[in-house]
Amino acid sequence: MAKMVVIYRTPADPAAFDAHYYNVHVPLAKRLPGIRRYEVSRPPVLTPAGDPTPYLIGTLYFDSLTAIREAFASDVGRECAADRRILAPNDDDVQMYLFDTTDV
Amino acid sequence: MAKMVVIYRTPADPAAFDAHYYNVHVPLAKRLPGIRRYEVSRPPVLTPAGDPTPYLIGTLYFDSLTAIREAFASDVGRECAADRRILAPNDDDVQMYLFDTTDV
Repeated sequence: MAKMVVIYRTPADPAAFDAHYYNVHVPLAKRLPGIRRYEVSRPPVLTPAGDPTPYLIGTLYFDSLTAIREAFASDVGRECAADRRILAPNDDDVQMYLFDTTDV
Repeated sequence: MAKMVVIYRTPADPAAFDAHYYNVHVPLAKRLPGIRRYEVSRPPVLTPAGDPTPYLIGTLYFDSLTAIREAFASDVGRECAADRRILAPNDDDVQMYLFDTTDV
């Protein structure tokens, strides 16, 4: 299974972020071709090491890294990327990691 | 389901890191009380935004945040934390996020 993990830093206006995230971004991202599952952290996100405050972590599941690439090359994928920039306008507002996984 | 996501930055000696991670850390962490599943990224971990190079992402699954807390309060948990500091000696070598999830 391949994952896209998106870690959002605490926004200036959490209520506005939540409204946009759940009402606009999630419904849009669920239309990505090949998406298998979409999981969101329930607050709080804890960081034992005291990293910069994370606010929300979204995990999108696909069959492979290739499927993720194809999803984001689609029209919906481009809309998602543009919408993500509304949620996280600055480079350090968000971290994104794409990877395949294996159980150990 | 609750997760502990551990993101390691690319180490100075990846071969030594891998040997320690797979031969020492994984077998130790799999003895944590309450651990349900342990998933490791297959290289490469991609970051579209060009974040500091991640090397490996481990995801440990538990029933709840409380179960994670209990696991790391155990003897094995303390051994894991100490062993993690061998893998990632500096604060910025690793990021850790603990959170409960919900499907959307």
